[in-house]
Amino acid sequence: MSIHFSTLSIIGVGLLGGSLGLAVKERQLADRVLGVGRRQVSLDQALEVGAIDEAFTDPETAMAQSDAIVLCTPAAQVTAMLDLARTHVRNQAIVTDVASTKREICHHARDTWPRPRRFVGSHPMAGSEKFGPEHADASLYDGAVCFVEEASDGLDADAVAAVVGLWSALGARTVSVNPATHDRLVALTSHVPHIAAAALTQLVADEQNLGPFIGSGFKDTTRVAEGRPEVWRDISLTNRDAILDGVDATVEMLNAFRRALDARDADALDAFFERGRAARERALER
Amino acid sequence: MSIHFSTLSIIGVGLLGGSLGLAVKERQLADRVLGVGRRQVSLDQALEVGAIDEAFTDPETAMAQSDAIVLCTPAAQVTAMLDLARTHVRNQAIVTDVASTKREICHHARDTWPRPRRFVGSHPMAGSEKFGPEHADASLYDGAVCFVEEASDGLDADAVAAVVGLWSALGARTVSVNPATHDRLVALTSHVPHIAAAALTQLVADEQNLGPFIGSGFKDTTRVAEGRPEVWRDISLTNRDAILDGVDATVEMLNAFRRALDARDADALDAFFERGRAARERALER
Repeated sequence: MSIHFSTLSIIGVGLLGGSLGLAVKERQLADRVLGVGRRQVSLDQALEVGAIDEAFTDPETAMAQSDAIVLCTPAAQVTAMLDLARTHVRNQAIVTDVASTKREICHHARDTWPRPRRFVGSHPMAGSEKFGPEHADASLYDGAVCFVEEASDGLDADAVAAVVGLWSALGARTVSVNPATHDRLVALTSHVPHIAAAALTQLVADEQNLGPFIGSGFKDTTRVAEGRPEVWRDISLTNRDAILDGVDATVEMLNAFRRALDARDADALDAFFERGRAARERALER
Repeated sequence: MSIHFSTLSIIGVGLLGGSLGLAVKERQLADRVLGVGRRQVSLDQALEVGAIDEAFTDPETAMAQSDAIVLCTPAAQVTAMLDLARTHVRNQAIVTDVASTKREICHHARDTWPRPRRFVGSHPMAGSEKFGPEHADASLYDGAVCFVEEASDGLDADAVAAVVGLWSALGARTVSVNPATHDRLVALTSHVPHIAAAALTQLVADEQNLGPFIGSGFKDTTRVAEGRPEVWRDISLTNRDAILDGVDATVEMLNAFRRALDARDADALDAFFERGRAARERALER
């Protein structure tokens, strides 16, 4: 499927938005790429690296000129941008986003947008510890998995196809998902592991002479705790229910281990570690 | 310091024991290297790869001929081997081990061996997912940290120096530790992270269509869960108190996060992730 837009707007020109602009321009998927940001310095950087053609500080003006709009703001601002887009986008424009959580955003759109809805949620699994348009990378989405809200009653089928087409054209492997299922599974595979890593590092916060004890196990297990606090705060708040369930399940699992160790139950300990080993093997096979 | 032994015995010729034999022979640190194992097939493999010069199935015979003895059996068997060594080693022989936990072993030796004690506990931070003498590697200890029981009342100072000298001659960086402090810190930096990883993988054990959700974060955070269950069972049992404390602290930390998220307390969530990020940065700097 070949895809092309006349004017594509990127709302939020950080690492994800800047990389999207570079990739869209490199692959000539739009005649014009507009960038919207609140800070002029980010917009200037995005212009300088060639991620966007024109810069705007008000989203409305850019939205009104576009046939494709990608919301790349922090997750916590996406629903406010959806409200703005609903009243300012052209009738035939498609709208998507890049937030790591999908249920709250897609349900908000479902409940407030006219049907058939032309906002289709996306979550490209791409990123890095770096941030800001100065680190934009035209190949960021190439080879990445990109979750796209699955077709459903009330969703415009052409809009779903166009959003899938956009990510595919950028080299991503699209996977259709139900937003609630998506959020439950990313809670378990990404958000709760991140929270656990942040908890584990805090256990040694006040220890002295720790250097020789830090091996590759500690480094790998806690690597994700390097992430930016504000990003993970927003992810937590926008995926609250699934994360609460996941944290509870983790605590329950740790307490079951605790009981087995307290009772010196060697068989139960063996079984615990074997279940963990087997589950990881299966998860990575799929 | 130059070190040389007449006869060095390795009790347990798995990956750690086999690698020790190869390294000792390559660096000519002993005239003869004896290997002790329960299974003839392991002894044959150790002979075949050149990790040992002679093989024994009874520890006593090898111990009685040696001026250096390294216990490389699984952690759970070390105290039994200590009892055997106490009655069979020569007066001037030095004895050490390679187990990942030190308090139980060193305290058992302290309480049962004649003073000044010539058993000095060691824990080289080396290993791999592989096991068995067929994967022995002469460079396994080269550049690794090796914890050695710190000099104390009742411990033979020459024996401590000899054990430090042995590991140093193999290229390891030795670090003197108090056994209880060692166990508390490895619980926090290695054992509890491992248990958390094994718990996290189990959360997704029964999920379908998980493939696209498995990113580098999940892979890194849970990598250590690949470890051999029986090794981690033994580590847990021999470092029970410190691990119980560490698991409790982790659960407490997760529950504090849970309360903040349940209350939608953005500042508390920010602070949680920032503490985690800062603690990791400090841990890796030292």
